[in-house]
Amino acid sequence: MQADRVLIIGDGQMGLVLADALAFRAVPTTIWSPFPDDARTLQTTRESPRLPGFRLTDGVQVTADDAAAFANATLIISAIPTQYLRQVWARLRPSLNATADRQHPTPPIVSVTKGCEIGTGLRPTQIIAEALAMPPNHPGLCVLSGPSIAAELARRLPASLVAAAPDQTLAKRVQDLLRVPWLRIYRHDDVIGVEVAGASKNVIALAAGMIDGLGAGANAKSALLARGLAEIARLGSAMGARIDTFFGVAGVGDLAVTCFSPEGRNRTCGERLGRGEKLDDILHSMKSVVEGVPTTKSIVQLAERLHVDMPITRAVHAILFDGLSPTDAIRELMQRELKAEQVG
Amino acid sequence: MQADRVLIIGDGQMGLVLADALAFRAVPTTIWSPFPDDARTLQTTRESPRLPGFRLTDGVQVTADDAAAFANATLIISAIPTQYLRQVWARLRPSLNATADRQHPTPPIVSVTKGCEIGTGLRPTQIIAEALAMPPNHPGLCVLSGPSIAAELARRLPASLVAAAPDQTLAKRVQDLLRVPWLRIYRHDDVIGVEVAGASKNVIALAAGMIDGLGAGANAKSALLARGLAEIARLGSAMGARIDTFFGVAGVGDLAVTCFSPEGRNRTCGERLGRGEKLDDILHSMKSVVEGVPTTKSIVQLAERLHVDMPITRAVHAILFDGLSPTDAIRELMQRELKAEQVG
Repeated sequence: MQADRVLIIGDGQMGLVLADALAFRAVPTTIWSPFPDDARTLQTTRESPRLPGFRLTDGVQVTADDAAAFANATLIISAIPTQYLRQVWARLRPSLNATADRQHPTPPIVSVTKGCEIGTGLRPTQIIAEALAMPPNHPGLCVLSGPSIAAELARRLPASLVAAAPDQTLAKRVQDLLRVPWLRIYRHDDVIGVEVAGASKNVIALAAGMIDGLGAGANAKSALLARGLAEIARLGSAMGARIDTFFGVAGVGDLAVTCFSPEGRNRTCGERLGRGEKLDDILHSMKSVVEGVPTTKSIVQLAERLHVDMPITRAVHAILFDGLSPTDAIRELMQRELKAEQVG
Repeated sequence: MQADRVLIIGDGQMGLVLADALAFRAVPTTIWSPFPDDARTLQTTRESPRLPGFRLTDGVQVTADDAAAFANATLIISAIPTQYLRQVWARLRPSLNATADRQHPTPPIVSVTKGCEIGTGLRPTQIIAEALAMPPNHPGLCVLSGPSIAAELARRLPASLVAAAPDQTLAKRVQDLLRVPWLRIYRHDDVIGVEVAGASKNVIALAAGMIDGLGAGANAKSALLARGLAEIARLGSAMGARIDTFFGVAGVGDLAVTCFSPEGRNRTCGERLGRGEKLDDILHSMKSVVEGVPTTKSIVQLAERLHVDMPITRAVHAILFDGLSPTDAIRELMQRELKAEQVG
C-alpha cells in the first residue's frame, strides 16, 4: 500500500495534536480550517489561541482552500465540533467527491468528534454519512476516541486511544499511522458504543465540575462517575452498543479523565456553574466549544425517545436550561430513595 | 427491634469517621483500640494522629478493654487493617462469644477492611469467619465499601457506599443505621465482588500514584484506570464475583477516588515511589497502613493460582519487591503489543 497523505478537517485542539503525531511519523499532513484568516495565522505563526503553548511542526500545511486541501488526501480526519459537522461536510462534499473520482480506494474518514446532534440525536459518523449521502455503517468510516485531554497530548504525554470501525483493516491502518511513542491505540469494532460513550461523558463531566465548584469532594465525584457510567451504558445498550465498550479505555477511561483532569473544558464549565457563574457568561469567555452543553440537550431527547432513565443527565439539563441550582440538584441526587444498586 | 449499640473494632480512619456518623444518629457507640495508650489518648483528647483535624464527638466511648467493649454491643464494625485482622479477632473471640451467649440475636459483624491476606489470599470477611470459627458466607457478616476517602468523610462531605451481605435484612439494617445527610448507602448482595474490588483497587492506585510521580498526566492515568478495572474484574470473575459489581460504586467508584484523590494513602505512596523514594522510607514516614503494599503480594499470588492475567498488578509487584523502576514499568506497559481491546 502507498504511503498515506492525511487531511485533517478542523484546526481545533484535537486536529492540532493529531497533526503533531502524524508529523512525528513524517506523514505528509494538511490541516483544513473553515476560516481563511485562521488558516493564514496558523500557517504563519504555527500557534493557535485554542491550544496555548503548542507549536505546530513546520512540515504541516494549513489551508482554507477546499479543493486544494482534498487534492492528494488518502485519509481524512474529521475534527469539527458536533453541531457544525453537518454544515462543514455539506460544504466539503463536492471536494471530497472530486478526490474520490480521481483515486481508488476512496479516502476513508476518521472521526474524532465527541457529541450528539441536537434535534436528530445522531452520532458524529451518522451526521457525516448523512451529509455525504453515504450509507450508514459505511466501511470507510472510523472513530478515534479515548482519554485525550489535548493539553497533555500537546506535551506528548502518554495516552491510550481506541480506533473503532466496522472494517478492522481500517482500524489497523489508523493504529499504524499513529504509532508514536506517546500513543497506544487499541482496535475496536463497536462504533456505536465508542461514540455514545464519547458524547455522554461530557454531560457527566459537567456534573463532576459542579461537584468541584461546590467543594463536595472526590468521594461524591467518584460515586457520580460510577452512577454516570451506569446511565451512559444503559443509553448505549438501548442504542445497540455493547455494554463492555463502556468499561474500556473509550468508556470509563475517557469518563475518568474528563471528570478529573483540571484541564478539561466540560469539567471546567461545570465548576464555574457550581461556583454560581451564569452559563452564557462562561461560554462567552471560553475559546473552544464546550461539547457537553449542546450534547446534554440531545442526550435528554434521545433518552426520552428510548425510555432510558438518566437521572444525572436530566439534572444537568435542568441546571443548564431550566434554572435549577447545582446545590439543589446535588442534594436531590443524594436524597433519592435508598435502594439496591443497579448497573446497566 | 430494639435500638442498636455499636462497637467499632479499630481506631483508624474509617473507625473514626463511622463513629462520627453513628454519633450524629445518636446511636450509642464505642470504639475499641488494641492499644490501651492509644485508647486513653483518644478518649481524653478526642483527637487522633491518624486523622489530623478530626474531633471525636464526646458521646463516643473509647476503650482497650475487650470484655467491657463487647458487653452491650448489638452490632460490630470491624475496621482493622487486613494483615492484623486474624490476630485481632483471635484475641477478641472469647469476648464476642461471651456476648453471643448472653444475647439473641448474636451481634452481626460489618467489615470495612479493604485488602487480601498474604499467604492465604483470603478476603476480610473470610479471615474474620476463620478466626471466629464461623462457617463461610455466614449471614451475620456484611461488607461496607465504596469511595470513602476518610479526610472527606471527616468533614462530612457527601459520599455513596454499598452494604453487601448475603442477608439483605442485615444490609438494610446497616443502611438504616448510617442514614445521615452526607451518606447514601446502596444495598448489595455480591460480597465477593465488593471485597475483591476494594482490595485490588489499592494496587491500581499505587500504579496511578506512580504515574503522578512521573508527571505522565491524567490521560495515562485514566487509561490505566480502565485497564486496571478490566484486570480487577477478571480476577473477581474467577473468584465467583459478578462482573457488574466492578462497574458500580464499590468498583469503579472506589477505584476512581483512590486513583485521583490527592488524599489517598495508596496513591500518595505510589507518587513518592514514582519520584524515586524508597518503599521502606515511605512506609516508615506514613502514620497509617498502606493496604496496597501487602495486598499487591497477595493479589499476585491469587492471580497466579487462578491463572488470571493481571499485567498492571504484576508491574506494581515488580516495582515494590523486585527493584523494577517505575519509568521502565510504565514504558513496558505502553509498549505492549498493539491489539484489540479486551474487557473482562
